[in-house]
Amino acid sequence: VIRLSGAGCGRRLGSARLGSARGMGGPLRVLVDMDGVLADFEGAVLRGFLSKFLLPFSIHFFWRNGFWFCDCQIKFLFPAKVASIYESPGFFLGLDPIPGAIEAMQEMMLMQDTEVFICTSPLRKYEHCILEKYKWVEKHLGPEFVERIILTRDKTIVSADLLFDDKDTIRGLKSAELNPSWEHILFTCCHNKHIQLKPPCRRLLSWADDWRAIVESKRRK
Amino acid sequence: VIRLSGAGCGRRLGSARLGSARGMGGPLRVLVDMDGVLADFEGAVLRGFLSKFLLPFSIHFFWRNGFWFCDCQIKFLFPAKVASIYESPGFFLGLDPIPGAIEAMQEMMLMQDTEVFICTSPLRKYEHCILEKYKWVEKHLGPEFVERIILTRDKTIVSADLLFDDKDTIRGLKSAELNPSWEHILFTCCHNKHIQLKPPCRRLLSWADDWRAIVESKRRK
Repeated sequence: VIRLSGAGCGRRLGSARLGSARGMGGPLRVLVDMDGVLADFEGAVLRGFLSKFLLPFSIHFFWRNGFWFCDCQIKFLFPAKVASIYESPGFFLGLDPIPGAIEAMQEMMLMQDTEVFICTSPLRKYEHCILEKYKWVEKHLGPEFVERIILTRDKTIVSADLLFDDKDTIRGLKSAELNPSWEHILFTCCHNKHIQLKPPCRRLLSWADDWRAIVESKRRK
Repeated sequence: VIRLSGAGCGRRLGSARLGSARGMGGPLRVLVDMDGVLADFEGAVLRGFLSKFLLPFSIHFFWRNGFWFCDCQIKFLFPAKVASIYESPGFFLGLDPIPGAIEAMQEMMLMQDTEVFICTSPLRKYEHCILEKYKWVEKHLGPEFVERIILTRDKTIVSADLLFDDKDTIRGLKSAELNPSWEHILFTCCHNKHIQLKPPCRRLLSWADDWRAIVESKRRK
């Protein structure tokens, strides 16, 4: 796996704040990223790339030689080809849910003193992406979650206790919020799994991992 | 003018905080609402209603009798007809800029130690609205402002110093942030002009009013 950027979770995390809420009263607020956390962006890029550019002539070669791609490798090697996949109409709406994501969101939505928002950044080529993100949420999670979408290219300015996100470094725009209120929990996926996090940074390995314990750890004692 | 809801600016404003920044360091952050503040939603609803439902047979009557509609009156009297106007394709993209809004945003973008975001709530029928909001911003303000769009139905969870908004009461979702970090500056328009604000609530009468003084009043002394 080619590592494209350094681990930044620690740098963005203002303080550990384990066991404490945001300190402003009200319910615990959880932000959940979309691509790579709820929706399987990587899998769809990989499938799209294989079917569009490699099949039928070379996939047998890769299979037979026991060599398999990760989507971040193909992104690195063929950026324009990969962009042509995720910028095409229907790509975002067609993403499969990450295993366990829908069930986790529905359970989180019902937890007492907890509110959940979907916090996602649109592509710069937003033509298809933004509408399809809304439709994806309506299709897989229902209209009550559509109300809870926050579409922003700067997540640092959203006030919350937790952010589950697969991006290792969450930067704001040029004048980023240096101390975002949330703790970033790195959601493990292909492109970040080899990054060594420094304490107090934490990971969620998948939705089968103990996300409930992470949520509970943020409650005001 | 029919007043549809009470003034809520005071209730949402955690503290006056005049002369102080958000208290977290970094630049002063200003959120600017879109419909009614940057884009002339009301004017387009009124024009659409008149051309679709009143012209040609009755407009002369209204003109000749010196009686004229405000968009909030027609919204109250004919909600379904009005919704059919703002839910139709092309409506949001076709909105005229509010006088002075584009110039004010461009000036604010260049102000030192200041960052500006466009914070706007999509309609529940989001089909045309969200993409057209992005395209409107790109058309009238340029791509650097597209980066600064925050699309959310709950503005209370965005951390900032100021929010210029024409809605008199800014509520969050069911578990609203009771103390949003921003001070809400009520941007005057047809549907809110008769609301009496209680101190310390403030108005901006138009973009020709002294928005610079309001921005400066929020700086850390």
